Amino acid sequence: MSIIDVHCHVCPGDFPPAPGARRWPCMVCGAADARTLTFDEKPFRALDARSWDLSRRLEDMDREGVGIQVLSPMPELLAYWLPIEAAEALCDHVNGFIAGLVARGGGRFRGLGMAPLQDPARAVAYLPRLRLVFGLDGLEIGSNVGGRLLGDVELDPVFGAASAAGLAVFVHALHPLAPAAGSPQYLVNGAGFPLDVALAGSSLITTGLLSRYPDLRVCFSHGGGALHALAPRLDKVWRLSDGFEGASPEPPSETIRRFFYDSNVYSPSALSDLARSAAPAQICVGTDYPYRIQQTDIGAYLASADLSASQFESLTHGAARRFLQLA
Amino acid sequence: MSIIDVHCHVCPGDFPPAPGARRWPCMVCGAADARTLTFDEKPFRALDARSWDLSRRLEDMDREGVGIQVLSPMPELLAYWLPIEAAEALCDHVNGFIAGLVARGGGRFRGLGMAPLQDPARAVAYLPRLRLVFGLDGLEIGSNVGGRLLGDVELDPVFGAASAAGLAVFVHALHPLAPAAGSPQYLVNGAGFPLDVALAGSSLITTGLLSRYPDLRVCFSHGGGALHALAPRLDKVWRLSDGFEGASPEPPSETIRRFFYDSNVYSPSALSDLARSAAPAQICVGTDYPYRIQQTDIGAYLASADLSASQFESLTHGAARRFLQLA
Repeated sequence: MSIIDVHCHVCPGDFPPAPGARRWPCMVCGAADARTLTFDEKPFRALDARSWDLSRRLEDMDREGVGIQVLSPMPELLAYWLPIEAAEALCDHVNGFIAGLVARGGGRFRGLGMAPLQDPARAVAYLPRLRLVFGLDGLEIGSNVGGRLLGDVELDPVFGAASAAGLAVFVHALHPLAPAAGSPQYLVNGAGFPLDVALAGSSLITTGLLSRYPDLRVCFSHGGGALHALAPRLDKVWRLSDGFEGASPEPPSETIRRFFYDSNVYSPSALSDLARSAAPAQICVGTDYPYRIQQTDIGAYLASADLSASQFESLTHGAARRFLQLA
Repeated sequence: MSIIDVHCHVCPGDFPPAPGARRWPCMVCGAADARTLTFDEKPFRALDARSWDLSRRLEDMDREGVGIQVLSPMPELLAYWLPIEAAEALCDHVNGFIAGLVARGGGRFRGLGMAPLQDPARAVAYLPRLRLVFGLDGLEIGSNVGGRLLGDVELDPVFGAASAAGLAVFVHALHPLAPAAGSPQYLVNGAGFPLDVALAGSSLITTGLLSRYPDLRVCFSHGGGALHALAPRLDKVWRLSDGFEGASPEPPSETIRRFFYDSNVYSPSALSDLARSAAPAQICVGTDYPYRIQQTDIGAYLASADLSASQFESLTHGAARRFLQLA
């Protein structure tokens, strides 16, 4: 088995000094390899060397049967609250860090970087650097950008630039628009994250994204959240609204079959449904390594899905190769 | 076939004068039986006599094979923005109107009323009136209450009072927390509504609602939105958070099987999945009559779901009888 895992995160082990911006990431050392990522001295998450060092990561990959990990930033690092100069500096730091891991990884890693989407024009200018300077295959973006829906017209040029540069786009849950801040973390994480991913997908669908950029490759984390469950109602509303007032020439259920999704749904039967019928050949393995909620025993998880040999091959690596345009 | 339709709305054909409150409903007459519901002179929805008169409604029911409609307020009438005295006056007006339809309907109608949830203590005091004064079987509530999650601790006594009074609770999508105001109506309706219902269910699940009120009967509109798609992730987070920090003794997927849902998912295969495996015997027919998005040809829709005879019987009326505790 040679699995390509498109959903695994990294975080640099340290950061340059804050450039005068609020909520700049900072790493605080603990015992052994433990460190704590903080923002303005508020602890965000306890991490260990799996986030910045390759040796334990490679051991875990070998044990789990993962051939290639596609590294993306810990989503909080997207930091869409930063002013643009600080944001670009953080993008350079994180993208350079990922590029270094890929370069030292002996072919076992690919990379998705980040861009300063809080300023769409500057993000458009930044995007070519991801491939040209850092050698990355695409970028990770939040399921919303500081509260702005992904289908917001201001963000459209970013998707155009990603398409033009041949960059894969991985949409990851981040700071969900609902529930409101102050809700328990288990509600945000358990429900808010997948619902926000589904809203992100719906927002892009209703703007007709893939009709403008038919070659754009977009993958949604967490199996698309709940996007597939919305398809029949979105189709109904599409018909009643004359194709979202002309924005989308095809019904949502067809667009849904052209997006990619990761396998991170924690249920073999839900995974079977995704990979067999909801979006055949568009499901990539994604584990959320190395966080507490990650799907462990990935080989057994995939094997327990009810799939044909060709569906299984697509799931384990075929879809990921198409999403990332790997040879 | 004798279908019980738990999701159909009514709206009074007129309203008493505004009691000095902003955004009080007002009906503006048009040609023939057309009227427009307005709030502060802003048109909200064009309606016809199906909303307040029984004759066309009964014709439609006979043609569609619907034996009993369970009438609930047009959700906008819940009007959680009103100050409490105005809210109670509107509740009395709408509940009295529904009671009148039920009384004149020759056994073809049951009723779900409304209560002023913007003031939970007053709502608790109001709830017994629904059955004692108006003869209704329960109440409709929004998927959030003026931005407050249904699992908010302030609302808990309302559910306790509903359980104590033996009232069925129908949760209907309303003013979704996401996407933000100003989004196109087709995004709000197509994605925002079902996502908010799923968030409402998740919010109630994470507070352990049914462990406190095991006899409470709760039905979610739109097939629960996307709630079933979230179950495996909610289960995972439940395990990682020690049962939502002790709030819920059972995994979310079990609570999900104890809620009721309507059939309003616009896809026979999604309906089959709901009625067969997601929440067996807990799916009631719901059409969203008489609005534009309603599921028409309900008999054909139900018949095209892949169900056994007993599952079909539960779907058409058995589950609804248990939800409403009808003989």
